[in-house]
Amino acid sequence: MSADQDLNRGGIVNAILESYSERGELAHLEGGDAPSRQAIWEIVEDLLRIVFPGFLDSSLPHAEEIRHWTAERVSSVERRLAAEIRRALRLSKDPSVDVEEGSRRAWDAAQLLLQAIPSVRDQIAKDIDAAFEGDPAATSVEEIILAYPGLQAIAVQRLAHILYLAEVSLVPRVMTEYAHSRTGIDIHPGAMIGSRFFIDHGTGVVIGETSRIGNDVKIYQGVTLGARSFPKDAEGQIVKGIKRHPNIEDQVTIYSGATILGNITIGAGSVIGGNVWLTSGVPPGTKIMIRPAQKMRFENHTDE
Amino acid sequence: MSADQDLNRGGIVNAILESYSERGELAHLEGGDAPSRQAIWEIVEDLLRIVFPGFLDSSLPHAEEIRHWTAERVSSVERRLAAEIRRALRLSKDPSVDVEEGSRRAWDAAQLLLQAIPSVRDQIAKDIDAAFEGDPAATSVEEIILAYPGLQAIAVQRLAHILYLAEVSLVPRVMTEYAHSRTGIDIHPGAMIGSRFFIDHGTGVVIGETSRIGNDVKIYQGVTLGARSFPKDAEGQIVKGIKRHPNIEDQVTIYSGATILGNITIGAGSVIGGNVWLTSGVPPGTKIMIRPAQKMRFENHTDE
Amino acid sequence: MSADQDLNRGGIVNAILESYSERGELAHLEGGDAPSRQAIWEIVEDLLRIVFPGFLDSSLPHAEEIRHWTAERVSSVERRLAAEIRRALRLSKDPSVDVEEGSRRAWDAAQLLLQAIPSVRDQIAKDIDAAFEGDPAATSVEEIILAYPGLQAIAVQRLAHILYLAEVSLVPRVMTEYAHSRTGIDIHPGAMIGSRFFIDHGTGVVIGETSRIGNDVKIYQGVTLGARSFPKDAEGQIVKGIKRHPNIEDQVTIYSGATILGNITIGAGSVIGGNVWLTSGVPPGTKIMIRPAQKMRFENHTDE
Repeated sequence: MSADQDLNRGGIVNAILESYSERGELAHLEGGDAPSRQAIWEIVEDLLRIVFPGFLDSSLPHAEEIRHWTAERVSSVERRLAAEIRRALRLSKDPSVDVEEGSRRAWDAAQLLLQAIPSVRDQIAKDIDAAFEGDPAATSVEEIILAYPGLQAIAVQRLAHILYLAEVSLVPRVMTEYAHSRTGIDIHPGAMIGSRFFIDHGTGVVIGETSRIGNDVKIYQGVTLGARSFPKDAEGQIVKGIKRHPNIEDQVTIYSGATILGNITIGAGSVIGGNVWLTSGVPPGTKIMIRPAQKMRFENHTDE
Repeated sequence: MSADQDLNRGGIVNAILESYSERGELAHLEGGDAPSRQAIWEIVEDLLRIVFPGFLDSSLPHAEEIRHWTAERVSSVERRLAAEIRRALRLSKDPSVDVEEGSRRAWDAAQLLLQAIPSVRDQIAKDIDAAFEGDPAATSVEEIILAYPGLQAIAVQRLAHILYLAEVSLVPRVMTEYAHSRTGIDIHPGAMIGSRFFIDHGTGVVIGETSRIGNDVKIYQGVTLGARSFPKDAEGQIVKGIKRHPNIEDQVTIYSGATILGNITIGAGSVIGGNVWLTSGVPPGTKIMIRPAQKMRFENHTDE
Repeated sequence: MSADQDLNRGGIVNAILESYSERGELAHLEGGDAPSRQAIWEIVEDLLRIVFPGFLDSSLPHAEEIRHWTAERVSSVERRLAAEIRRALRLSKDPSVDVEEGSRRAWDAAQLLLQAIPSVRDQIAKDIDAAFEGDPAATSVEEIILAYPGLQAIAVQRLAHILYLAEVSLVPRVMTEYAHSRTGIDIHPGAMIGSRFFIDHGTGVVIGETSRIGNDVKIYQGVTLGARSFPKDAEGQIVKGIKRHPNIEDQVTIYSGATILGNITIGAGSVIGGNVWLTSGVPPGTKIMIRPAQKMRFENHTDE
């Protein structure tokens, strides 16, 4: 390394610091006022350890230690989650919320999520049943917990959805993004999901914010439940918050690569075939499939 | 934090502990009786370090240290892998297996996998050749090892397949899920894969348990080799263990987004075009493509 | 563990060491002569921390510490990145480069990347604007930085592209593979990308090495910008380095699952519908969509 390079580095650091001032929206420097992705993702991992005790750690808790182990984890998650929620509230800059009020709301939301864990575990147990019954390759409950990414993504979404309903900003989205990063399954925390939901394989699945999914629905890899068009306001800005994603009724199966767009309803018991592109609703009991014959051209293959 | 919040937390912990008793299948608390995902994923990382020495660590082994380095890693992986296999055997609750017998079988299976590493490296070297010859963007063997997720997913599957053949439950599935999580490529450990297999890009690829893939097969992102239907028994339960996935003969190429379902055969040298949906077999030398003209509607674009 | 098993282990280690000699291309043992994936991925994480200060760490820098914090990170990244680039240069075995020259070139390339960070931050700020305007679910700049995988993948590619232009081998590809592994979005460092680029959801997106993308382009999950055919030379080897990927002009939108192949041009303002398969160019202002009616067959659904 030369003196020139040392000199250069000083200039580089100055230029980056200037960029932090000029592009302040990409920098959070005021001492802890932004939620941290890393912190939230570690909270999600600890929540999953509480939901599936003994499955995700290298060393497992013994039965006699379980009360102490649980109390420690719950207390730690509560404190860290409240801190992240408080930061998210501060960011949203609601002037009616003072520091003490914000702190109280953050603790309340964190406790709300922890209180919901037993009922979330009940829901997940039903999701596991659906996976076991829906996949001939599944051999045990343990396999589904340890090796089915769909279950992981659903579990994280069911937890994040509780904070979404409590109108906590930002934190639930960062939570589901943890699952997206690990599983390729992108379920918005706003989606309303019924009982016994099964996603097989799952890579590429997208389920949008205002989707509603009934009971006993089964979805394969690459399925999109998306928005179709985005109405704009008088100033040409996209209007946010409108119901714009599909409603999937009970006992619907959607095969890989199918795309369903818009605030439409797929009637109960319908089967949507693979690679179908659907922008209008269908009545209960409908089957939709691409006709294979129309898609193919057979020729003799010759080496090129 | 208030006294109320402290009180609440006690209630939360009690409710979670009750949920552990009621939903015991989602909790493994008896001191180490379930395999751990984290432990198995760390074993996979160490296996890959043994397979590709010097490529995956921040600090690389020197040539003179390589015997010691290898002996340490092999010994550590053997011990940890045997422990996870023993846990998986115990879970499967085969009453004919006593503790000592289970322990012996677990060590044997772990050694079987380690013994196979030289031949797996031979197979992987051929997979690398296929990637280099098949992708104009590939510039070196090192690039393929360091930056091609398909190679990683294939390497993990070739290792897991050895345990699958030895009828080890659960552990091989958790191994391939490691690769799925990192690459978006989901290959079941049961799939039988020939020589010189190349997966390019790979995100969204699914290869089911009973698939058979010949030599010199090339697959792109988003390809599914899946099951078509799941026969049910007299009680309405899906029958497990039937051959239900495709057979892909030698020198077949399958382009992105194609889906091939069922126990059908794609004849040697065939080319399956992108986004094709195929549920019946084709003879050798077949080309199948979506006819582009049929899929499109051209209009003038106007700003909305 | 028995004496037999100990004996076996010795044989296993010997066989693996023999395999390292025979399959030397899969082993890098000469004391640090190969770039390390782990080292490069950690460098990427630190680069992202410099680009988005305060967003990605568990503990955030205070404003008064920011000069020291930045100088330390810049200095550390410079040193580690130069080391990896030097290893990549050594691998490429250009005989005209001696050790000192290689070392100098590596430091220069590392400084080039760090110098570019302010302008990369400007580009990323525009990408964030495009995401905010393009997605009704986006509620804040912070949400886009913390929870939009598309932004992460674009940021890493914009950084890696600088090293690609400086003709650094291997390192930029390993950098973009970091993003691919975490987001399912595979953008080659060679791709040329204009301003205000938005990828929504993103899992399964593939953008090839010689793609050119204009300004204000919007892409959804599962979109491929790929190569169509690979010309071979007189010896039957694929010719490397040819322009073979699409050109996407300004203000084009490409919906999920669409595949665009070859060195073709999609004219400005065009809209490419979902699941479209396109191997020829289209003039500006074209809309292409699969006609839904042609793809479907409705039947009454009966329980099987």
